[in-house]
Order: sequence, then C-alpha cells, then structure tokens
Amino acid sequence: MSLQDSNITAIGIDFGGTSVKIGVARGPEMLHSAEPIPTQAHPGPQALIGAMVERIDEIRAHFPEVAAVGCGVPGLVDFDRGFVHELTNVPGWKHIPLRTILHERTGLPCVIENDANAMTYAEWRYGAGKGLKNVIALTLGTGVGGGVVINQQLYRGSSFCAGEIGQMSVHFDGKPGHYGNLGALEKYVGNNQIAEHAVVRYAEAGVERSVEECRPKDIALAAQAGDDIARQIWAEVADWLGTALSSIAWLLNPDAFVIGGGVAQAGPLLFDPLERKVKSMLSTIVWEKLQILPARFSNEAGIIGNAALAADSI
Amino acid sequence: MSLQDSNITAIGIDFGGTSVKIGVARGPEMLHSAEPIPTQAHPGPQALIGAMVERIDEIRAHFPEVAAVGCGVPGLVDFDRGFVHELTNVPGWKHIPLRTILHERTGLPCVIENDANAMTYAEWRYGAGKGLKNVIALTLGTGVGGGVVINQQLYRGSSFCAGEIGQMSVHFDGKPGHYGNLGALEKYVGNNQIAEHAVVRYAEAGVERSVEECRPKDIALAAQAGDDIARQIWAEVADWLGTALSSIAWLLNPDAFVIGGGVAQAGPLLFDPLERKVKSMLSTIVWEKLQILPARFSNEAGIIGNAALAADSI
Repeated sequence: MSLQDSNITAIGIDFGGTSVKIGVARGPEMLHSAEPIPTQAHPGPQALIGAMVERIDEIRAHFPEVAAVGCGVPGLVDFDRGFVHELTNVPGWKHIPLRTILHERTGLPCVIENDANAMTYAEWRYGAGKGLKNVIALTLGTGVGGGVVINQQLYRGSSFCAGEIGQMSVHFDGKPGHYGNLGALEKYVGNNQIAEHAVVRYAEAGVERSVEECRPKDIALAAQAGDDIARQIWAEVADWLGTALSSIAWLLNPDAFVIGGGVAQAGPLLFDPLERKVKSMLSTIVWEKLQILPARFSNEAGIIGNAALAADSI
Repeated sequence: MSLQDSNITAIGIDFGGTSVKIGVARGPEMLHSAEPIPTQAHPGPQALIGAMVERIDEIRAHFPEVAAVGCGVPGLVDFDRGFVHELTNVPGWKHIPLRTILHERTGLPCVIENDANAMTYAEWRYGAGKGLKNVIALTLGTGVGGGVVINQQLYRGSSFCAGEIGQMSVHFDGKPGHYGNLGALEKYVGNNQIAEHAVVRYAEAGVERSVEECRPKDIALAAQAGDDIARQIWAEVADWLGTALSSIAWLLNPDAFVIGGGVAQAGPLLFDPLERKVKSMLSTIVWEKLQILPARFSNEAGIIGNAALAADSI
C-alpha cells in the first residue's frame, strides 16, 4: 500500500443502526453520496443487502470507474474472511458472509470492517493523523469506540476486537460496563452518562435540570456562556478520558490521539483540560511526542474510511 | 528474521542497578554465564564498560563463534541509534552512545535495548509466548515493567517508551505514581506496596505485622498455610492487576499475557484469582483467545533476551 493519496475510486458503506449511508470517494475526496437507506425499513440481511446493491448499481451507472466496495458495520467482524459475526443493534444480522455476498452481487472486490476501525482508517489515511506512524483514534458518542494504527497499519488484534477503548477501566471498583467490567470508560464519558452526571452536579448546586436539558451540547453551550458548573463538568470528563488516554500512552507511546464524535464537538472546552490532564499523567519523553487532535472528518468518516480500506486493498 | 530457533551464538548483557550479568546463549540455550560485575564498583560509564569488555573478551576466548552482543539497560534507550538516554538508578549514565562504544571495543555488531523489552523478547522468542502473534509481557517486582509484541515484532513506540504497564492507571483518583500519575498500577502491585497493604490488612484484623514480615514471599507462604487474610491480599492484588490487564486486552486483543518477576512466584495464589478477574472484565470473544501464562525464564531472561535480540539483528 502506498501512502500517497489513492487515485482509485471506491464505494464506502457506513452501516449504522439507524441508516446505511453509501457514498463514493477517491482518496479524501467525497465524489457523491446517495440517499441513505433506513436500516429498520429492511428487516433481515437479504432485504437490506438488496437495497445496498441497488444503490451500488445506481452509483456505478454514474461512476463506472468504481473499483471496489468497503462496508463498515456496527459490530463484530472477521476482517480476513469478510464475515459479520453479529450486529447487536440490528436484528437478524448474525453469521453473515457479507463480503462473499456483496462480491457475488457486484463483481467488485469488497472488504468488511468494524465501523470504529473504518473511522480510524479515515483519520489516519486522510485525516488528522495522516502520515503518522502510531495513532489511536476515538469516537465519543453514546458509546465510546476506537481503533489502533501501529507502524502505519490498522491493528485488528488476535480476534479482530482491538480498539475497544470504551471498555477500558478507569477505576478498579467503578461503574460496571456492558460486560460487567468495572470502571468502563464508556460509563463515564458516554453521552448519557455525561448528562446524568451533569444533573447530579447541578442538583448539588441547588439547580434542578433534567437529563434532556443536560446533553453534552447543552453543557457545552452553558460552559461557553460562563457557567462554572458546566466548565467543571467538562473538566471531570477530561479527567476520566485523560486517565484512559494516559494509560494508552504509557502502553503504546503513540504519535497521536485523534478524537471525534458528538462529545468532541465541545472543542477547547474538552481538549484544553484534556491536554492538561494527559500531560500531568505522563513523563516528558512520552508527552513530548504526543499530539491530541480533533478528528478531521465527521459524518463522512465512515464512507471515506470504508472506501479507503477498499481502495487500498486492491 | 526467521521464527526458527537461532543457531547464532551471541552474548547477552543484563545491566541491572546492582549487578551486570553477562552470558552467552544460542537460541534458548544458555551456554555459559560469567561472574557478574557489581555495578556500583565501577563508577562512571568508562570503568563499567571497560569491565564489560573484559568479560566479553574472556567469553570470546572460549566461544570464538560469538557473533553479536546485546545489552539491556534499566532505563531509556534509543534502539535505532543504540543510545542510552538515561539510567535513573545508575549515576553518570546519561547520553551514552553505548552501541557505538561496544562495537568499537569488540568489533561485533551490538544492539542496545531496554531491560523490560529484552525480557519480553526472551519470552516471546523462546519462552511462554513462543510462536504467538500478539503478546504482552510483564515483570512484577519492586517496579512493574512490561513489553509489547505486535504482529510478531517487538513494538517500541514512537519514542521507544512503549510497554510501561506499571504506569497505567487503575483508578482515576488513585495513588500517585512516579510521575504524579494518579492510580499508577505499580503503586498497587509493586513489592513494597503489597507489603504495606498487607500490614494494613493484618492490622485491621488485630494482627501486628511489620513491612519486613509482609514481603510478597511471606504473604504467599501464609496463604499456602491457609491464612485467609493472606489469600484475601492476593485476591486484591489480582483485582488491581486484572483491571490493568483487561484494559490492555480491550485495547489490543492479544493472544497472551506472560507474567514474570518475584511477585509472580506466588503462582496459583496470584494466577487463579487473576484469571477469574480478567475473565469477569472481558467479552467472551476477547477472553476466549487470551492466555495468561507464567514466564518461562527468570534470572536468565535478560541474558537470553539480549542475546536473542543481537542474534536476530544480524
């Protein structure tokens, strides 16, 4: 694989629990994006794959140079075999040989990847982490996902499960995560957890706020308007997140963290205390090498990342 | 580099704060080990390097087939340049181009590595982690060191600082480590910290014990003799250590952890609760792939690892 921008045109499919976004990209450039497919409107893999193939055919009519298809899914895959083990939030998606099916239906080379890995690939290949050797990417949203680039290669782990940063523990006796794993980062800095924590902090100050009034977006607006409690909440989020990032930095001594997702939209409100926290947790030599960068891509990360994975695989 | 056992004979130097051990090995086989050099008896790098070269010359008189020298040091190195940045516990060792000096004095190809990385290499190349793709090794002693093998290669990180597992946080508001890093694992499961914690646990049960009576060795003997408090202490150590290991497993999804060092001598007293703890913190698919293994090598790990690094570099 060359580290120059690819000049291969590929289709990227960003398969989410709500919608399946399909677009066509060449390198970092998004050439076109099709009307998204509502995931739940097509019950079962057969129907949904049929709708995907329709979109692919439509796109290829306009972009006959499309040479490959990459599809990122919200769940567990076997990258080598192009096999979807299970998508927890999409009924019926279990043990699907998606690469084989897509290849048979399109005649194109296809790759299947986990969605967080595809986002990581987009940021490393064409985004904030471009050209760096060792990069850790995170998306902060309802859940916390991530991916690991080691020696200029996406590192997938021994059973393709690497990069589950949201499940890492920041407290040996802390809040249980999805697997009963105590102190799971996601249970501190996930969207809903930030909101719930904010409700508590406001209540302590005698201010009654509902969870709906305490979305990360609201806390960011309040902090920008000078609300001390809101600023304090971001500092706490930075403390939790920074603890996990510093542990990763001690283990992997990377060039950069690239952070995206809704929560990262808070910008300096999050990144400033996060930098301070991570710095306070590291030795000079590990810190000096390290950058903490906001992601370049947002909604288009999935399409660009999956298209790039597909283009780079041929 | 072939993954067969090397048939190259190399000298391994295990440079410790107390003594410098020098031996000659071929693959996993230790052919001979020389009388150790007391580190402090040779103030300054010049004198100590002189003593090392003397030993190397003596060894080569008996093993003329020696083809390379590997030296592992207790501190920060630049592996690519063979440069010692600093050895915190050995006065005068700062900015030493050790590989160049050793090469000039011996005429042999030399490699310089961090000591925990050399131990990791020994365990992956010839020890408990032999043949595995992704392996994390730890030594549990006064400090907690480690190393990372990714895709069958020692992973050194962007400034050669990867593998500092003892500095990873197990509690975002926990005990500060050497760098002020809150919750540093080393401050929970280091030799002295286990002893201090045991004193507290015994005191709570109305039993007065000194730190000297609570070395990990003593706690292991007491636990073997059926002492419930001692067993409880090992379970707590397993909890702390298992928290860090599970975080690493979520991030890197490795094939194995290999655990050595004095504290690991507790055997099943540590490994049994550790397995339970790590399993309780992981998803089935990550856990299924994972082995938690006691190290094969003990005192000889440094010599074998450094000799192997040297042999594999030519």
